[in-house]
Amino acid sequence: MTDRYPFRHRLRVRYNECDPQNVVFNANYFTYFDITITELWREAFGSYGAMLDSGVDLMVVAASARYLAPARFDDELEISARVARLGETSMRTEMLVTLDGKAVTEGELSHVFIDPATQRKRDVPPEIRAGLERYVVAVEA
Amino acid sequence: MTDRYPFRHRLRVRYNECDPQNVVFNANYFTYFDITITELWREAFGSYGAMLDSGVDLMVVAASARYLAPARFDDELEISARVARLGETSMRTEMLVTLDGKAVTEGELSHVFIDPATQRKRDVPPEIRAGLERYVVAVEA
Amino acid sequence: MTDRYPFRHRLRVRYNECDPQNVVFNANYFTYFDITITELWREAFGSYGAMLDSGVDLMVVAASARYLAPARFDDELEISARVARLGETSMRTEMLVTLDGKAVTEGELSHVFIDPATQRKRDVPPEIRAGLERYVVAVEA
Amino acid sequence: MTDRYPFRHRLRVRYNECDPQNVVFNANYFTYFDITITELWREAFGSYGAMLDSGVDLMVVAASARYLAPARFDDELEISARVARLGETSMRTEMLVTLDGKAVTEGELSHVFIDPATQRKRDVPPEIRAGLERYVVAVEA
Repeated sequence: MTDRYPFRHRLRVRYNECDPQNVVFNANYFTYFDITITELWREAFGSYGAMLDSGVDLMVVAASARYLAPARFDDELEISARVARLGETSMRTEMLVTLDGKAVTEGELSHVFIDPATQRKRDVPPEIRAGLERYVVAVEA
Repeated sequence: MTDRYPFRHRLRVRYNECDPQNVVFNANYFTYFDITITELWREAFGSYGAMLDSGVDLMVVAASARYLAPARFDDELEISARVARLGETSMRTEMLVTLDGKAVTEGELSHVFIDPATQRKRDVPPEIRAGLERYVVAVEA
Repeated sequence: MTDRYPFRHRLRVRYNECDPQNVVFNANYFTYFDITITELWREAFGSYGAMLDSGVDLMVVAASARYLAPARFDDELEISARVARLGETSMRTEMLVTLDGKAVTEGELSHVFIDPATQRKRDVPPEIRAGLERYVVAVEA
Repeated sequence: MTDRYPFRHRLRVRYNECDPQNVVFNANYFTYFDITITELWREAFGSYGAMLDSGVDLMVVAASARYLAPARFDDELEISARVARLGETSMRTEMLVTLDGKAVTEGELSHVFIDPATQRKRDVPPEIRAGLERYVVAVEA
């Protein structure tokens, strides 16, 4: 199921991330997605800070998730990621959260690349594009 | 812009909800959506606990958001909500977050109604359906 | 019990602030304390931003809490605050969280005043001192 | 500095844990302390769930922290822990958070052992006491 996701990150569910239903609170999966982007960046470029130093930042413009099965305190989750679209000024990353190989949550984050000084959209720098290309998996619509 | 949203809730952005970009961290809007559902429930039924007491609970099955403009620490946001679909066992609620009348974020939560004992889907009880009907706004696809 | 606290703020416990024990997660009380400082500042000076504009910021140097009774989802808590010490460059604020008049949590935050540009300690400006004085309650050691 | 702490856990600062001052928000250190207790439990007993299965739970009764230096996004922190007191029905754990060997935050959590069914205090079971003893470091007052 996670074959077509070139990046993986594992994390453990924290106690405070679970709600009185004893499952991960829905909004926290978006935090997990954000952490996964940071880790993908580390693997691709050394660190998120390295990208900032090169004069480019990311801004989230859209996020979505479908909740398929619950995860609980102390579960060790695997979050798989692939870049589903890498445009001129934007990218879309797809995520799949699994527990022991079973799908828990799937979702997407759409980012635009911005100039941190002006907060305006800018082209993806060639070195960022080069670094991300090995995570791009073309997905049929 | 918020005319077709029968429910409104206001809240202030907390300092810890903002990130180093000095804006509300993207995942926190989903927490705002959850708070808004709780408040809609209070207006419709007295409280979320009253629904639980009647033997029904809500489970989030999907969530999404588009980020249109930033919000910052101490901003007072208005979150408008409408029930866009009220099915046999599910509902979809649409949200619009505004700051001084300008759109900040829009999004949706899809819930299913479950029996808390079995965690299985169940029909929306008639009294819940009756209470929610005044928040239903048919939206063209 | 809350007689000697000149400031009060009320807030409702959010679903995501509660843990699988179905009570407010311990760390979240420190967020409640932070919110209360912001609201005390609003009452005293108009807003936290007004203080920042005057060239002074607050940095937390110590925090503590004793947990006396649980609070749960949707509880409406009252947080009472008093300035227990207002020094040359620092202040200590004491908090009492109550639910229906019963003590839930008590705690303290110690802040130093800093120059945001240098991040160094600075004297409390006279207008800040004047604004805070009505919240000072001398407490025996 | 961390010589007298028999337990260590490392974690990376998440983006959403940092505030607009670009440092870890003060309340989040208490979440770090809680995570550290969970990991100490894993090392001592296999898991926190194993303790729950044996009919005992932990409840936090007090927490405190002193903030000595800031930590920032993506910093990899080491959290050192020792059991400073192991009483009949309670324990006090001391924590030291460091970054590259420099102290960032120090603090304590005090817990009581409870029966999850009755929520009342109970004696520390002998097998829990035995497991914790190698983390006890007597500290002069």
